[in-house]
Parts: sequence; C-alpha cells; structure tokens
Amino acid sequence: MRYFITGCAGFIGSHLTDKLLSAGHEVVGYDNFSTGFAEFLRKANQSSQFTLIKGDLLDKETLVDSMSHIDFVFHLAANADVRFGTHHPHKDLEQNAIATFHVLEAMRANQVKRLAFSSTGSIYGEAETIPTPEHAPFPIQTSLYGASKLAAEGLIQAYCEGFDFQAYIFRFVSILGERYTHGHVFDFYKQLLQNPDQLTILGNGKQRKSYLYVEDCLDAMMSVIENAKDKINIFNLGADEYCQVTDSIDWICEYLGLKPKRTFTGGERGWIGDNPFIFLDTARIQKLGWKPRLSIREGVIQTIKYLSENAWILDIR
Amino acid sequence: MRYFITGCAGFIGSHLTDKLLSAGHEVVGYDNFSTGFAEFLRKANQSSQFTLIKGDLLDKETLVDSMSHIDFVFHLAANADVRFGTHHPHKDLEQNAIATFHVLEAMRANQVKRLAFSSTGSIYGEAETIPTPEHAPFPIQTSLYGASKLAAEGLIQAYCEGFDFQAYIFRFVSILGERYTHGHVFDFYKQLLQNPDQLTILGNGKQRKSYLYVEDCLDAMMSVIENAKDKINIFNLGADEYCQVTDSIDWICEYLGLKPKRTFTGGERGWIGDNPFIFLDTARIQKLGWKPRLSIREGVIQTIKYLSENAWILDIR
Repeated sequence: MRYFITGCAGFIGSHLTDKLLSAGHEVVGYDNFSTGFAEFLRKANQSSQFTLIKGDLLDKETLVDSMSHIDFVFHLAANADVRFGTHHPHKDLEQNAIATFHVLEAMRANQVKRLAFSSTGSIYGEAETIPTPEHAPFPIQTSLYGASKLAAEGLIQAYCEGFDFQAYIFRFVSILGERYTHGHVFDFYKQLLQNPDQLTILGNGKQRKSYLYVEDCLDAMMSVIENAKDKINIFNLGADEYCQVTDSIDWICEYLGLKPKRTFTGGERGWIGDNPFIFLDTARIQKLGWKPRLSIREGVIQTIKYLSENAWILDIR
Repeated sequence: MRYFITGCAGFIGSHLTDKLLSAGHEVVGYDNFSTGFAEFLRKANQSSQFTLIKGDLLDKETLVDSMSHIDFVFHLAANADVRFGTHHPHKDLEQNAIATFHVLEAMRANQVKRLAFSSTGSIYGEAETIPTPEHAPFPIQTSLYGASKLAAEGLIQAYCEGFDFQAYIFRFVSILGERYTHGHVFDFYKQLLQNPDQLTILGNGKQRKSYLYVEDCLDAMMSVIENAKDKINIFNLGADEYCQVTDSIDWICEYLGLKPKRTFTGGERGWIGDNPFIFLDTARIQKLGWKPRLSIREGVIQTIKYLSENAWILDIR
C-alpha cells in the first residue's frame, strides 16, 4: 500500500510513519514543519520507501501534485493548540477546517477514496453524558479547536456521501508518550526543571481527563481500519479510565522525586473553553477486540522519561 | 435598535428588513446580490431608516467597516443551493462557513455581541429520531450544505464561549411564501408553465418534508429572540406536520386546474444528499407560545399565487 500522511513530522504522524514503513508499506509524508520536527523522521528518512514533502496544506496546488498514486490518506496535521484558540481564531479555521477541505479536494483530484482523520473528544463540548459515546446528544462547541474539528468531520462525511469516499474518523483523548511536545505533562515538567520547588497549576487541579499512550492509539487506528467496513466509521479512542490533574502531578513528582509547592490559579477550567471532565465511552472500539496496554499512569511516566532523555524539545518551545 | 442583516435582498432577509423597519428600527442591509433581488427591497428603500450596502461576506474589510454601531446581527446570507453542492464543493465552504467566520470577526472588531443565524434541519443528516429534536443524537452529515451550516453553528458557539457572544441559532425546514425563489414549488410551477401536461419529479415523489410559511418563520424568530435568554439558544423552526412531494403536487395542480402526466426519476432520494424524510420536533419553540398560522398546504398555495403574479422571477433563473 502507498500511504499519504499529513503531519508526518508530528507526534502521532511520525510514529505512524515509522509503523507503516516497518510493515513494508510506502509512505509519502507531508508536513510544513510549523510544529513538527525533522528529528522525528530520522528513522523514516533512512528508508527508500519514504518520501518527504515539505508543504503546507493551505497550498492546495502542491498538495494535489503530491497525492498521485496514493491508496489511503491519514490526515493528522492540525493546529492542536486548544488553549490559545481565542488568541488567533483564524488559525483553527484555516489549519483544521480549510486544510481538511484541501485534503479532500486533493483526494478527489487524484481519485483517492479512503482516509483516516484525527478528530477529537473536544467536539463533544461539555458533554452531558459521561463517558461520552459516539452518538451522544448533538453537542455544543466550547472551543474554536473543537468547532474547527467538527467542521472537518462534517466535510469528510459529506464527501463520503457525495463522492463515495470511505472515512475513518477518530475522536481522540489527549495522547501521551515518546515525541510528545505539548500538553500538561510538558508544561509541568518544564516548570519543574526551572524550579523544582514550585508548580503552578491552571484551574483548581480537579479537572478530570482521559489520556491514551501513543502506541495504543496507533494500534487502535489500525485495528479499526482493518475491521470496520462502513462508509463512515466513527470511533472514540481513549483509555478506560480518567485521572485528575492532581493525580498526574503526583505521578510526575513521585517519578522525579520532587515535592514542589503547588499553586492553583483557581476555577473549574484551566482556560476559556477548557473542559473540566473529558472521558469517552470506548465500548465501540473495544467490541473490535482492542484494549489499551498502558494505563494513564504508565503513559504519563513514559512521557516524563522521554522528555528527560530529550531535553532539546523543552528548549525549542 | 440598529440591526444588521446579511442577505437582506434574499427571500427571508427582505421580509425581515421590512418587518424591522415597520417596527421603527434602523436596518443596515448587506447583500452581494448573487441570489438576492433589488426588487425585494423596493419598500425598504423608501425608508430613511434603511441603509443598503452592496458587499460580499468574503470581503472582510468592507464587512468590518459596515458593521459599526450595530446592536444585533441577523446572519441570513448563505449559499442555499442544497442540491448542487457536489458540483462546486468550495461554494458551501466559502459562502456558509468562511462567510460566517467573517461575520463573527466583524462583530468582534465592532464589539457587537448578539446574533441570530439561519441554520438548517439539513444538519441532522438522515436523522434516526423523527420528529427530530434539537438534542438529537450526534448527526452524520449527508450534504456539503449541511456540513457547511454545521461548521458555521460550531464557530458561532465557540465565539459565544470564547468572546461572550449571545447567539440564536435557528434550524429551519424549507420556507415558503412571497419572494420564494427556489425549491420544489418553483421547479414544478416553472415546468407546468412550459408544459401543463407533463411534470417530471425527482425521486419517487414519496419524500416527506416539512415546510414553514415565511411570515410564521419571522414571528418564530422574533418570539425566540424576545423570550430566550441563554448564551446559546438553539431552536428548530418548522410546522407541526409534513407532506409528501406528491401531496404538494396535488395542491399545486388543483389550484392551477391542471392534470399533468407525472414522470418520476425514481429512487428514495431526488439527488445525492437529498433527505427522504425531514420533520423537526418543534416542542421547544412551541413552549414559548409560538404556533404557525398557515398549514403547509396554505403555504404552498400562497407561494404558487405569488409566483403566478410575479412571473419575472421565473424568467430570471
């Protein structure tokens, strides 16, 4: 198979690139390196089966030209910066909704009909049903990030109906593990490196969230693509558990042997649009036989381990 | 109050313009006249309270400049051409999703915080629950039109959360009445004018749809805006009934005194993305005391009456 991966130099995209190359497939990777790292493609670049294209998804022409003879598209590139959406509202619209439209149009131009898309549990807004299933009541958006991913999902679904595409839509919780480059573990670790005695926590620390380890995430996606055969296949991806922000801090501090003074900025939400409780119902994917291998605790520790062995990432942001 | 109406020269927009001017308000109307008609603003243009701006919503600069000192925005402009979405996929994205983004940004630039938006029952896709309530299960999009309206809804909701806007989102069924310029009544009437003995019907004619008379639609919107006080207010707008396409044909033919031979193109759907059964649950708005005054039958007849007295509309398209 010849795969096309947008965001191939990103956290999940680079792992997927490695995995598909290891399985003997060809991979054409597309990235604008705005948040991806060449370092993450070191192994991939050693493979003759890998082609890297430095391009932007807003440059539709380059995208169309790059997608010839592709069997399957993984569209993972995104503005994943949930927290700062209100600082630059155009960014989510452009990099998530319009970029997805360009991916769909490039597929249509090249007669590529199958894609997988990394959506997000954020599109459920502040769900009333928790754990939240895929058929939860029609949600209300609380962030520009969620809204832009919802827009992308809707476009993909309309292309399935209108142009006979087949789609796999994955609604992720936050992902942890090697090559993790932003999120609460990153922020806390960076703070503790600068001052091991002091930790500032956004909100009251009681936000409850679910996480998934990156290798478990990849296994889940591949398992769905192999087994789900509908025109539109929508799956929540997450762990069977959630934790409080303070649980995660306990694990991080225990692993690092630190006892910082904790300061809370207060309030149920860490920022505008933060969701105080994210926990997805994963019964649908578990029916396919998939289960995460690592607990959230183990995922957090793998992440801290990786960050402490790869200090260059902390310097870059 | 000083209102801003996008799509002021359109079917619903021009009625709303007249209504608000009659109530003594100021109206700034914005339209690119791509599908609107100057003729519809003949009455409005006689009022000193009315300002018409010929502009495109994709021209953000003109839009921002036009929205100064506004109290409330009605965002009604749209590409309402549900049927031909797959002929030009960029049109729905640009004219519905991106245009809405520009409206929101223009509001933000001018510190306007309240808006009403004309969404659509099409965003429920092929709903499992019929009549379909506002909190129906998370829908799957079946048309680019629906997808682009869903994208717009999501953006509006995110602005309510992120920038403290207040929004009224109306999910319309198809609207009938004076100044109606496209849809099945228009198509059938035009066919019958050309050949009173022959009528071609897209699909099997058994599609079930709900309709609402335009004056009832305006009353419904105003009633919600007066009475609903949440940050985000989402309301289905429709009749308490639905009809089959063939019922509507019966009414039209009876009114015109014609008995054409009916030819059906066949299939449950009239076109790709057509929804064979649209019927919205309107319990939420009826709780506010609103009820439609005209039945669907009466709405269809009002429409035919209008078209027969305004033949110029049929010539233009």
